[in-house]
Amino acid sequence: MPKISKSAASIPASAIRMLTPFADKAESNGVKVYHLNIGAPDIKSPEQAVKALESLHPDHFPYSNSAGFIELRTALSGRYYPSIGVNNVTTSDILATTAGSEALSFVFHGAFDPGDEVIVMEPFYCNYNTLSMMNGVRTVGVHTDIRNGFALPPAYEIEAAITPRTKAILVCNPSNPTGTLYTREDMLAIAEICRRHDLFLISDEAYREFCYTDEPYFSALQIEGLDDNVIVIDSFSKRYNLCGVRLGCIVCRNKALMDLILRFAQARLCPPVIAQRIALGALETGPEYFRAVREEYIARRNFTVGALNDIPGVFSPMPQGAFYTVAELPVDNATDFCRWLLTDFRQDGETVMLTPAEPFYKTPGEGRNQVRVAYVLEVPALRRAMEILASALEKYNSR
Amino acid sequence: MPKISKSAASIPASAIRMLTPFADKAESNGVKVYHLNIGAPDIKSPEQAVKALESLHPDHFPYSNSAGFIELRTALSGRYYPSIGVNNVTTSDILATTAGSEALSFVFHGAFDPGDEVIVMEPFYCNYNTLSMMNGVRTVGVHTDIRNGFALPPAYEIEAAITPRTKAILVCNPSNPTGTLYTREDMLAIAEICRRHDLFLISDEAYREFCYTDEPYFSALQIEGLDDNVIVIDSFSKRYNLCGVRLGCIVCRNKALMDLILRFAQARLCPPVIAQRIALGALETGPEYFRAVREEYIARRNFTVGALNDIPGVFSPMPQGAFYTVAELPVDNATDFCRWLLTDFRQDGETVMLTPAEPFYKTPGEGRNQVRVAYVLEVPALRRAMEILASALEKYNSR
Repeated sequence: MPKISKSAASIPASAIRMLTPFADKAESNGVKVYHLNIGAPDIKSPEQAVKALESLHPDHFPYSNSAGFIELRTALSGRYYPSIGVNNVTTSDILATTAGSEALSFVFHGAFDPGDEVIVMEPFYCNYNTLSMMNGVRTVGVHTDIRNGFALPPAYEIEAAITPRTKAILVCNPSNPTGTLYTREDMLAIAEICRRHDLFLISDEAYREFCYTDEPYFSALQIEGLDDNVIVIDSFSKRYNLCGVRLGCIVCRNKALMDLILRFAQARLCPPVIAQRIALGALETGPEYFRAVREEYIARRNFTVGALNDIPGVFSPMPQGAFYTVAELPVDNATDFCRWLLTDFRQDGETVMLTPAEPFYKTPGEGRNQVRVAYVLEVPALRRAMEILASALEKYNSR
Repeated sequence: MPKISKSAASIPASAIRMLTPFADKAESNGVKVYHLNIGAPDIKSPEQAVKALESLHPDHFPYSNSAGFIELRTALSGRYYPSIGVNNVTTSDILATTAGSEALSFVFHGAFDPGDEVIVMEPFYCNYNTLSMMNGVRTVGVHTDIRNGFALPPAYEIEAAITPRTKAILVCNPSNPTGTLYTREDMLAIAEICRRHDLFLISDEAYREFCYTDEPYFSALQIEGLDDNVIVIDSFSKRYNLCGVRLGCIVCRNKALMDLILRFAQARLCPPVIAQRIALGALETGPEYFRAVREEYIARRNFTVGALNDIPGVFSPMPQGAFYTVAELPVDNATDFCRWLLTDFRQDGETVMLTPAEPFYKTPGEGRNQVRVAYVLEVPALRRAMEILASALEKYNSR
């Protein structure tokens, strides 16, 4: 039997999806599972996106340009980015991708050589590990602390992680999994480190529209004088509830990098064309949609974080963005507990699914008693899920 | 300015798309360009695929399983593959991908380590270079000859290319760019080499339904006793004219490899869900669709290859599959000629776009006077394109 890749064999299974077989089994046995484990919200997509889909009556489906339809990229550079305060992005600075995942993958292949390192604040989106390892790139975690809301560490702590192989700092703002929102000052501090050490600043802004403070969002694209360093990963998945459609883009003004990435894009021919049509429709979405979604998430967040902290021994900071929070549970090993919820615990035939947070950490042993909670259900369902969690913890600790 | 990837910087621009800017310019100046340069046919998609799209009225778009909807994989294993004579593929042997390109990319990352080699008969689909180089994998070309229809070389010639780093033989059957169709005997000969040297046999079967001999198509999945070695790359793009939809799959019974590839798949969350719904519809397509398409392509092929060989100094073998042929032209450098067609030559305001074949060869200098011709237009348009080509060659050689 021929051997599979040695270098890839160490890639871990997805932390977010590794418990799925246990949930499938419970559900096939008739158990109702509250899914707080994955960022797949129940919010409706904007009607403009659905209409764009429904208006399609093609008789065949040709390829688009490898960088995406020019109308889509023009709508992004001419209307969407200016609407968030970014005025200096041109159509050629944008390359449409099969969602943020492909955008990240292209960046890991284009900005790095095997053996290079990328600094990420931990806990971080665990798929950064896999996507970077696929090009032999090593993620280096810089610790942030649940007790101070996973705030950005001081510059010297980040700089201490820099080695001759460091090529970039990668931030997710607001953060999956912590919900932490970096302010303008935070982003400028990171930019300063990148400038000083000539690093790329990769900013994953998939959750840009989900911010719960009163300050305007500050995109990495608004940093001045760092055009060759800033790479923004963008996505239609969360903003417009188009997760399964798979459309995103890379925005970057470094021409050499974009030229190289275009070659990767050409090799895979084009991003999905129907997704691009839906995205064009989605870009017509008005502010009232985002206002309503934001209000809904603030209500869900306030309820969830309040309810979590009401459970004895549970602690969650108050996240300021995205739709996740990381919570500490009164258990030794949250992975075991999350599995037990699916395999053993039932309350009136119901249980809850959470994501263990340990795989979001790079440092071994960190986050072992933490979980990521995605508050992606309506408040009544979240209420029931929190009741189940409280009972489950009590039962688990008195086994 | 931070440096971009050194290892990726040697990746060439797409041979298929590198002349696109010149075509765009000609077209923006009102020139009609006959596009024989890209495998984007004008054939209609099956109505079952279009209906599947038109019947969608989702209010949001959740993720699917990372391996694809179970209904889709079941329809493939239970109905489609048996319909082509493959009866021993289960749902778990199938992983849906964002077209054949992603399938190939996953295989290059999962079956190889950086520095490993893959043997491919040249000329070969030039994107194999880029997709393999993205994991540091080296393609090794084994020469095939236009004068004998790019027939499979004898085993000893293929085996001469095997080194300790060889991990796989990759075939495209029928072949893009040559249209060569490997018979059952050819495939068994390749299988025997793979068995002897414990290599993966990667079979790109995107053009499986486009075969113009009377023998039934022989898929690598029909090879017996080599389940751990055979990897099939499949695609909905050409079979159902769904190029822009971006759906394909990997079919492989090597559990270790499929487990690893599932981890890559999880990291990119899921293949496009609307594409999967369209694909499910497409699988209902009846044999009359394929019969009509086949007849049309046989007419186009016969016309095109006949017309090419009627032009003084031009030679094309008779391809038995796909919708391409590689032709020798009476020019020193076909790349220059193809560019000149777009920049300089007009006949009554019209010109033709072809793809230089040199980038389909690994051996430097090979194929310099060859082009790939995609016969993807109706016969009257092909006739006009061949007239233009004949005049252009005459003019080019009397400059």
